[in-house]
Amino acid sequence: MIETPEWVKHAVFYQIFPDRFARFGGDHLPAGIKLKPWGSCPGEQGYQGGDLYGICDRLDYLVELGVNAIYLNPIFSSASNHRYHTYDYFEVDPLLGGNKALRALLDQAHVRGIKVVLDGVFNHASRGFWAFHHILENGQDSPYLDWFLIDDWPLRPYHADESNPPNYQSWWGLPALPKFNIQNPGVRKYIYDVAEYWLKFGIDGWRLDVPGEIDDDEFWREFRRRVKAINPNAYICGEIWQRATHWLQGDMFDATMNYEFCSLTLSYFGYQALRDDYHKNNLPLQSIDTNSFMAAIEDMVAAQDWQVTQVQFNLLGSHDMARPLWILREDRYALQQAFLFQMTMPGAPCIYYGDEIAMTGEDDPYCRGAYPWHQPELVDQAMLDFVRSVVQLRHKYQPLRTGRLSFDRDLPEDVLGFRRELPEQQVQVLINRGKVPQAVKIDGDLNWHLVLGRKGQVQSHGRYLQVM
Amino acid sequence: MIETPEWVKHAVFYQIFPDRFARFGGDHLPAGIKLKPWGSCPGEQGYQGGDLYGICDRLDYLVELGVNAIYLNPIFSSASNHRYHTYDYFEVDPLLGGNKALRALLDQAHVRGIKVVLDGVFNHASRGFWAFHHILENGQDSPYLDWFLIDDWPLRPYHADESNPPNYQSWWGLPALPKFNIQNPGVRKYIYDVAEYWLKFGIDGWRLDVPGEIDDDEFWREFRRRVKAINPNAYICGEIWQRATHWLQGDMFDATMNYEFCSLTLSYFGYQALRDDYHKNNLPLQSIDTNSFMAAIEDMVAAQDWQVTQVQFNLLGSHDMARPLWILREDRYALQQAFLFQMTMPGAPCIYYGDEIAMTGEDDPYCRGAYPWHQPELVDQAMLDFVRSVVQLRHKYQPLRTGRLSFDRDLPEDVLGFRRELPEQQVQVLINRGKVPQAVKIDGDLNWHLVLGRKGQVQSHGRYLQVM
Repeated sequence: MIETPEWVKHAVFYQIFPDRFARFGGDHLPAGIKLKPWGSCPGEQGYQGGDLYGICDRLDYLVELGVNAIYLNPIFSSASNHRYHTYDYFEVDPLLGGNKALRALLDQAHVRGIKVVLDGVFNHASRGFWAFHHILENGQDSPYLDWFLIDDWPLRPYHADESNPPNYQSWWGLPALPKFNIQNPGVRKYIYDVAEYWLKFGIDGWRLDVPGEIDDDEFWREFRRRVKAINPNAYICGEIWQRATHWLQGDMFDATMNYEFCSLTLSYFGYQALRDDYHKNNLPLQSIDTNSFMAAIEDMVAAQDWQVTQVQFNLLGSHDMARPLWILREDRYALQQAFLFQMTMPGAPCIYYGDEIAMTGEDDPYCRGAYPWHQPELVDQAMLDFVRSVVQLRHKYQPLRTGRLSFDRDLPEDVLGFRRELPEQQVQVLINRGKVPQAVKIDGDLNWHLVLGRKGQVQSHGRYLQVM
Repeated sequence: MIETPEWVKHAVFYQIFPDRFARFGGDHLPAGIKLKPWGSCPGEQGYQGGDLYGICDRLDYLVELGVNAIYLNPIFSSASNHRYHTYDYFEVDPLLGGNKALRALLDQAHVRGIKVVLDGVFNHASRGFWAFHHILENGQDSPYLDWFLIDDWPLRPYHADESNPPNYQSWWGLPALPKFNIQNPGVRKYIYDVAEYWLKFGIDGWRLDVPGEIDDDEFWREFRRRVKAINPNAYICGEIWQRATHWLQGDMFDATMNYEFCSLTLSYFGYQALRDDYHKNNLPLQSIDTNSFMAAIEDMVAAQDWQVTQVQFNLLGSHDMARPLWILREDRYALQQAFLFQMTMPGAPCIYYGDEIAMTGEDDPYCRGAYPWHQPELVDQAMLDFVRSVVQLRHKYQPLRTGRLSFDRDLPEDVLGFRRELPEQQVQVLINRGKVPQAVKIDGDLNWHLVLGRKGQVQSHGRYLQVM
């Protein structure tokens, strides 16, 4: 029997890109440094100085939003602002406040009932990672020679070009990202040590970066055994954009980042507003009718065990794609519908920081702007209020979290209807993505709750419900 | 009034080059690595795998030798086998066993009354040091820009050559060793944090690498204040090869590595055996007669306060010079005399690992051979016994450690005589560096102790003493 962490079924995640969510600064951080102004164009390289103390400082904002879990993009020491180029897996980046800041964040988050999941980048290190640096400096005399996959000498991590590509295995051929030799026992032990260290430190799980590129099931099985031995409730969520049934049999990951959900949801609610000039691998975006959408969601939900489906990481946006609002051509109404759908579906919803206030932006790096604490006029209060309300809805009705899903057929075109059912309670959801109100025949005397309406109120006329 | 640590006046140091003293290995070290065989030619680059657990394992050897203080060459994480290229000042090198190994070493050394002094390399970092690496990766977008002294862009740490020298300040123009911008408050804080962290961890002092190249007295004054605030008995010993009166006024260092002592002592006892083809900056080696030698030693001893003289770090060999036995053209007798002189002089004597068993070798890297635990036949037992005996002499007679020094004049040529005097006890030392026995007139009925004789015994004929 497959087991997944109970808490995730009840979680509403908030994804934070640490350099850009909130800047606290102060004496906890390295002195004598220069940061870019908060709110600089994210298209520029560099650091705007978000840090973990900044997150501590805004936890109450998250509580108010209804968030009870945080997924942090990488926080270990790195020489890139997204921190996927780890140089030290045992030290939280000094610019984020170091290990002390994570201690503070974990303590303050846990007091509020908020879980914290970290980003584990274990497929590749960086060319600044100590063991790779050791090889760079010592050549074939380095004892760590076998920790990476070196093709010839001397190494070219800094002067590779098209005619001289990096002469070692790297992620997508990027010289900055040498790939670990996962078959080396020292590397395996090192990665397991890292995973265990931070679980003991108190984190609540690992989001795994590109784990499918570590093509060794036994590596991940052992990873899971070790993680769960320390914390049986730890969440293991793999970044696999496609269907990942193979990894979701209960012996490797609890869940994956559900880009399929994202793709379908934005496609459906984007309706006519969808950007058709935005192409992203594994994120197909194209208008889809209601019947096809329902079939696709049903297929997605049924693709793995129900235990897994309930903890799938359902996202609408992330650091790796354009902001959903941008994809929806700034159609706030469509984004709200997508949020409503996300909060009423099986799987743990995740709000990418700022989407809840209608931040917009093209693909990476433009999707990584600074949260506008400094410019409150940029906060879309209506969007924020709406997201809060649908998060509360999810928390209020247990079936929205753990109830079985079934779609209602034979509704008017552009009206989506479905139920989430537990033996003791059932919830029915109706969403009209169209531009005109529709009358829907309903089963009996239900209590209807208006979440969103372009015009007027939900009107219950006998056995018909006017939807928007 | 100048204060220096009392314990250093009674210390006999043993300097250890960690990669080459003793290898313990085992599960404490990274897995999946390849080391060179123990005892490989030190002329080859690479790692022979000495580690701190190996030192723990040999502490009883040091106790038997009479050693009560260890000076360790750098142990922090580094991609060079001498570890002067620090990439992480807060982590003991994994190849040495990491911070846990230092914990074990400190605990096991302290139990035996052995102090441990670390090597602080604060003038320069390495190109693998995180903040420099950060600049390398981020260019002018790195917040750490001002931590180093960058001349232009892009940085050339890995493809500098004669026509394209490194375009940042570095130690002796070496691209591997970027110089810290000590004027940056973040750098100052970082270095002070490092110094304080390890003192709190339990070390007994800092040997400072090339501190004269941090030309900022106030930096070192503050360094001293912080060090002594944590441990008033901590020893601060600067690596300054020349006279360093300026730094020895009580507000900066307690002592310096006394290469002047080394130079004079090898020159004097080397006599006719001295290698005249060995030239080393700040280590002049040339035969010197007894009167000139006495005058030079007197001048050296008087150059700073007596509190300082008693804790000067008197060495005969180090990792930075040819082995004294090699300098003395393998004349074991001359080396023994030098050891005798070292153990009877004011100042804390230091034995460079292996000199006590007559290891020999040219300049760096040949002076860094592996201690031959694996080949006991390479241990010169007579030399070892002798060094033990003169160390014991120093421990036995307090005046040899803290008594005032005065030379005896009017002795036969090639006979060196001096006294070490405390009010309650006096010691007189006579050493004949010549090849023929000499008769020396003595003052009264003293107890003479034969330490060393080429021929026969010390013979006391009334008021004359036959010296060797």
